[in-house]
Amino acid sequence: MNDEKETGRLEAFSDGVFAVAITLLVLNIKTDDANLWNQWPTLLGFVTSFITVGIMWLNHHRLFTHIRRIDTMLILLNLLLLMVIVFVPVPTALLARFLPEADQPNQIRMAALAYSGTFLAMAVLFTALWRYATYHNRLLGKRADIKAVQGIDRQYFFGPALYMVCVVLAWLYVPASLFMLLALAIFFALPGHALPQRGRAPKEYRPDEEYRSSGD
Amino acid sequence: MNDEKETGRLEAFSDGVFAVAITLLVLNIKTDDANLWNQWPTLLGFVTSFITVGIMWLNHHRLFTHIRRIDTMLILLNLLLLMVIVFVPVPTALLARFLPEADQPNQIRMAALAYSGTFLAMAVLFTALWRYATYHNRLLGKRADIKAVQGIDRQYFFGPALYMVCVVLAWLYVPASLFMLLALAIFFALPGHALPQRGRAPKEYRPDEEYRSSGD
Amino acid sequence: MNDEKETGRLEAFSDGVFAVAITLLVLNIKTDDANLWNQWPTLLGFVTSFITVGIMWLNHHRLFTHIRRIDTMLILLNLLLLMVIVFVPVPTALLARFLPEADQPNQIRMAALAYSGTFLAMAVLFTALWRYATYHNRLLGKRADIKAVQGIDRQYFFGPALYMVCVVLAWLYVPASLFMLLALAIFFALPGHALPQRGRAPKEYRPDEEYRSSGD
Amino acid sequence: MNDEKETGRLEAFSDGVFAVAITLLVLNIKTDDANLWNQWPTLLGFVTSFITVGIMWLNHHRLFTHIRRIDTMLILLNLLLLMVIVFVPVPTALLARFLPEADQPNQIRMAALAYSGTFLAMAVLFTALWRYATYHNRLLGKRADIKAVQGIDRQYFFGPALYMVCVVLAWLYVPASLFMLLALAIFFALPGHALPQRGRAPKEYRPDEEYRSSGD
Repeated sequence: MNDEKETGRLEAFSDGVFAVAITLLVLNIKTDDANLWNQWPTLLGFVTSFITVGIMWLNHHRLFTHIRRIDTMLILLNLLLLMVIVFVPVPTALLARFLPEADQPNQIRMAALAYSGTFLAMAVLFTALWRYATYHNRLLGKRADIKAVQGIDRQYFFGPALYMVCVVLAWLYVPASLFMLLALAIFFALPGHALPQRGRAPKEYRPDEEYRSSGD
Repeated sequence: MNDEKETGRLEAFSDGVFAVAITLLVLNIKTDDANLWNQWPTLLGFVTSFITVGIMWLNHHRLFTHIRRIDTMLILLNLLLLMVIVFVPVPTALLARFLPEADQPNQIRMAALAYSGTFLAMAVLFTALWRYATYHNRLLGKRADIKAVQGIDRQYFFGPALYMVCVVLAWLYVPASLFMLLALAIFFALPGHALPQRGRAPKEYRPDEEYRSSGD
Repeated sequence: MNDEKETGRLEAFSDGVFAVAITLLVLNIKTDDANLWNQWPTLLGFVTSFITVGIMWLNHHRLFTHIRRIDTMLILLNLLLLMVIVFVPVPTALLARFLPEADQPNQIRMAALAYSGTFLAMAVLFTALWRYATYHNRLLGKRADIKAVQGIDRQYFFGPALYMVCVVLAWLYVPASLFMLLALAIFFALPGHALPQRGRAPKEYRPDEEYRSSGD
Repeated sequence: MNDEKETGRLEAFSDGVFAVAITLLVLNIKTDDANLWNQWPTLLGFVTSFITVGIMWLNHHRLFTHIRRIDTMLILLNLLLLMVIVFVPVPTALLARFLPEADQPNQIRMAALAYSGTFLAMAVLFTALWRYATYHNRLLGKRADIKAVQGIDRQYFFGPALYMVCVVLAWLYVPASLFMLLALAIFFALPGHALPQRGRAPKEYRPDEEYRSSGD
């Protein structure tokens, strides 16, 4: 009874916000020319932002398989995180609009800064939410899967710093920033403890075990 | 069996409406200039309205941890409340549009009146819904947490009057009105019985206990 | 086990569609003049359509407290019903746009026809869905509340005919049509067996009992 | 415990995306002329895309009555599927816009290619997701309904090839492509094992049994 999952409605509300935000990305695509290739930067922006927000949902889902209790602070941190998620269509549209305009390098840089900055804010808030929930097992279940929790700890530890690098790269050379953002999205799609670790035998590699560990 | 929670679908529908309304706020932001700072009033409006609607969701969630039964009247009151929530993007857009236009003081005042009036309507409907549900424990569970319920009673008692002050301030001096709206949002983010009360020792201060009280 | 409710995801999907459709109504309101009264027909359209779609949700919720099983036909009927719900913002916008233009009586009549026709289609589909589900108790639970089911039967029996009258009135005299649509929305907000019936004593009037009857 | 359904939040998020995507279709309809028949191609596009996306939801729902476990790969495949679902309003709008413009045969063909190509991508992803989940019963429950699973196998086997034909037809003769897309939607609305099969007596035809089979 004491260990009952309390996060139901918080997850449902978050799912709703993720679902609307990810769907609104399509509104950037224009429909006045049947040849969609003519707006390839917008299509590319749609695909990358959709995948990226989707992977953020995957991470949110992963954290909340471990978080079982809520309090006001967690709700507020989650709210700030959702605000950044909802904001993603804006820098996506900016990037899609100015990326093909090679004669406006300043607008391209501003758009890349807005884009990488949005993901930096997301990484900071993901880390803050996770730290808050796991500090002294504050909001985890009594039977929390220690190994999976530590896997996420390790994966999130450098998150904000890595996204800070993307922001700096946006100042220096925009394509490098976008490439690194894509690579980081793939990195965070992988389950935390599936990643190679020091001092641990590679034979123990068990992908996705956090989803199954409750039945062990 | 008799005490089974009946509010599942009402909460799911409300979560959906909150999620869409809070996400639509982003549509106010324009994407034809990569320098987002140039539209700071719109960004400010996005952030404050997002936080405020988010805190309204937090309050809705808090009320429905205690409300366990539904009837037609509650559904209709909840519907009116959702209608006001959905309306929030409109006065937000008005305020973001006219706040920087110092030469149109009348439009600014009308926008501030619409904004504060919307939150007044929200406060009145929150109070009405809560009063209706708690009157003679009409729709609460049998094991309702009396202390948490009374905490919400106290917090909501002055809600409509405080928001009425915001509306009056919007006539007199717009910045004071907006500042007070922000302060009230923070006040309603706090759990009701975490607030200092007369005749109760401050050492009993236990933030967020309403979320955990079911397991006591 | 055999009587397990199978309708969970159908209700969740429907709730999502209702939530988005009801929220999109706000997009009709313009935000280029802070004096919202200048667009009162749009505001009126927002309020009436919001309430009406909300009452449709209430009816959907009511039907699915009794429907416990699903099959492909029910899913398709529900899909058609949702399609009409999603369409509501269109005739609402038409009516809000042309109602104040007294010099275009033909456009007003077309808008009123589209509006009342949409609600006629909704009534037909609600009745078809309910008839399909209740025919020989096809999709009801084993312990279905007969009295509540019969109450809905009675209320829905004349539904399509009453909405047909609204369509005819839209040809003859638009205000009468709109007034009758409002009256019907209120009628369908009432629980079916709370309505006065022939051969039943008025002392048995028990509002909202369908929500509580499972605990009797 | 080991067979507990883990797909709850994945289904909730997918339902949200389906609900928003299907509702956004209505934004294509213009509201500046009360005579809606004047934009019949847009209305036709709304109806066919709504029904088609709705049937895709029905298929998604059907697959996930059998899929009980999740892993990262399934979440990513599901994400790609949702991305294509969300994209549907774009080719729908293109088709509705250019279909009546008989003097632009090239734009019509491009729109029909985008439309049929979107559904081809959807068919490929549905098949991939189903294959991944059912391969060696990877993510099915222990008591998976073999007959229903095989019914879906058979129905999905030719799916991508059939939609490939639609794409080719879009090059040759657009109306034939659209007609075949409609026919395929109806085919995939039918439950898999309700379809006639070789080596099985037609008397065993039991529509929709996959929804009830858990209670056998």
